[in-house]
Amino acid sequence: MTAISLSRRLRRTPFSDGVEAAGVKGYTVYNHMLLPTVFDSVEADYHHLKNHVQVWDVACERQIELRGPDAGRLMQMLTPRDLRGMQPGQCYYMPIVDETGGMLNDPVAVKLSEDHWWISIADSDLLYWVKGMANGYRMDVLVDEPDISPLAIQGPKADDLMARIFGDEVRDIRFFRYKMLPFEGRYLVVARSGYSKQGGFEIYVEGSDFGMPLWQTLLEAGEDLNVRAGCPNLIERIESGLLSYGNDMTDDNTPHECGLGRFCDTHDAIGCVGRDALLRVAKEGPVQQIRAIDITGDPVPPCDRWWPVYGGGKRVGRISSAAWSPDFRTNVAIGMVKMTHWDAGTEIEVETPDGMRSATVHETFWN
Amino acid sequence: MTAISLSRRLRRTPFSDGVEAAGVKGYTVYNHMLLPTVFDSVEADYHHLKNHVQVWDVACERQIELRGPDAGRLMQMLTPRDLRGMQPGQCYYMPIVDETGGMLNDPVAVKLSEDHWWISIADSDLLYWVKGMANGYRMDVLVDEPDISPLAIQGPKADDLMARIFGDEVRDIRFFRYKMLPFEGRYLVVARSGYSKQGGFEIYVEGSDFGMPLWQTLLEAGEDLNVRAGCPNLIERIESGLLSYGNDMTDDNTPHECGLGRFCDTHDAIGCVGRDALLRVAKEGPVQQIRAIDITGDPVPPCDRWWPVYGGGKRVGRISSAAWSPDFRTNVAIGMVKMTHWDAGTEIEVETPDGMRSATVHETFWN
Repeated sequence: MTAISLSRRLRRTPFSDGVEAAGVKGYTVYNHMLLPTVFDSVEADYHHLKNHVQVWDVACERQIELRGPDAGRLMQMLTPRDLRGMQPGQCYYMPIVDETGGMLNDPVAVKLSEDHWWISIADSDLLYWVKGMANGYRMDVLVDEPDISPLAIQGPKADDLMARIFGDEVRDIRFFRYKMLPFEGRYLVVARSGYSKQGGFEIYVEGSDFGMPLWQTLLEAGEDLNVRAGCPNLIERIESGLLSYGNDMTDDNTPHECGLGRFCDTHDAIGCVGRDALLRVAKEGPVQQIRAIDITGDPVPPCDRWWPVYGGGKRVGRISSAAWSPDFRTNVAIGMVKMTHWDAGTEIEVETPDGMRSATVHETFWN
Repeated sequence: MTAISLSRRLRRTPFSDGVEAAGVKGYTVYNHMLLPTVFDSVEADYHHLKNHVQVWDVACERQIELRGPDAGRLMQMLTPRDLRGMQPGQCYYMPIVDETGGMLNDPVAVKLSEDHWWISIADSDLLYWVKGMANGYRMDVLVDEPDISPLAIQGPKADDLMARIFGDEVRDIRFFRYKMLPFEGRYLVVARSGYSKQGGFEIYVEGSDFGMPLWQTLLEAGEDLNVRAGCPNLIERIESGLLSYGNDMTDDNTPHECGLGRFCDTHDAIGCVGRDALLRVAKEGPVQQIRAIDITGDPVPPCDRWWPVYGGGKRVGRISSAAWSPDFRTNVAIGMVKMTHWDAGTEIEVETPDGMRSATVHETFWN
């Protein structure tokens, strides 16, 4: 176990005091910010998440704000996903690609109005790309990182907890929709979304000073619901097939390789800068793609680097995320596999630090 | 002490195996990559660095490569530093600014030829800004992150160690110049540079497979020089006034606030996109600026967030880096201070986690 060396460069969040008081045991760094990874143990956190409700400091999902007459046009240049039907009140998961079709990020965009958007980013300084584009194309739009820090409420009891703070209105929020709801006089975007498949919400906390009061209110209001401080859980997110930018894909990968082809409209010339590059892969399909992988044997060690995948003695892919699943009694994993070996049921071999393991391409993710 | 949770997203380097074998005790994350922070203790590492020679894994200084007819023009758009006199063989430290004059990074650029440059970056995804600009301005240039990982050799015995591997020719390399020198048949850029003031070199290791062989060769060749695995040292870099992007300055700051006005040519229209924004601050000067600060009393705790600075009861700045200096028997610090209180000798107060401390604006940095 190696310690993380803290410095101002690894930014604290408006909720860090609460995270520390809850006894955080592990951190990662995400968008230059501290992201908790474990409180009790990854397995104990996992069981709790699946049965109760957790409050997650995901302030590291930094926002990029686009404001101005060209905001909508710039948004569409960034992504191959067709935004023409998107309404204020909706959130869209979207690949962001460069001019070669390589993925630069896979954020959730929030449309506030035609000329006002937020992009809730994965782990890369997407702000720089958006600012560079806005500048280079001389667009009439302001691009900034505002003081907004998402707080996620995840788990089967999330609706009950949220209703106590924001009223029963939260129960009616549909998946990937949001409502503006008041907390202590300020209206916040409350969306039904989050980085688990256990259900829940993300609150876009505008104003850092607002962070700890909301955190405390949620933890106090949910005592009888067994609410706890939590964080994105490695096991649960692999079971759920929730990809992690930087782990499961990088700017080398197209959305189609990541199984995100359904979010790419290359038919119409909607304005995405990566459209031409993606046209061929959209027509012919990718030669490798992300798959759920079932790795046999004892619990695997932490997957801190790509593990090579072999089929018939040849290299046919890589594992990028893996963990022992207590519920499914197997090692669940995410990998990129060549088309020769990507069919469900295909037997493959994975080179783990402990040695070769036999593995199978799984038909679907587990949750 | 909180653990760092490893995942593929926090990239290992070509030297990580060596770093682990040397017993690394702390990591930070820098450009999505592991950067060691301590081996023995920060103080023991410090004394060793000042007396012997260390090999540093600074692969996290990722490179951005610009190749093509517009490479030179794009480089000049990125920085207010005048590049017209820069020759192949030279390295330039340079602020990179956006259209508002805010600093996006403070890298060292390496000029290989008129149409071939490397940018050795600090901790932000500058690649995205450069690619966005190249795309938006439709420039004829390829922009990429090549497989190049810097390895630093730092300390007073660096020349002796390097001469054993690369020959006495290394002794003639002038400050911020480089030579192409062979190691096992491959020519590498060897520059006299590095993130300490103890003297030394940075080797731009091209090809990850080349990392561990070079690491091992250096450690074996320097046994009688008491060579060790090391890393940028918090105490030494503060004593030396080496700024850290993300700690001491952010994109809110102009180069002039960071004391980097001498690297800004706003007189001529050389092509930097931030030129107009910087013109006023260049003429009138900034209202706050980075200063060396001497904090009295016992060793301060780790500075993991900005500490407010007060003068005459008013907030006049912030401390961004601080550490106890064994050699200077005081707490050395870097801070941003308003012009009302930035003169050498001015008494100020610093709000540390341990309480208020009296402090003084120091005339110069210590090394």
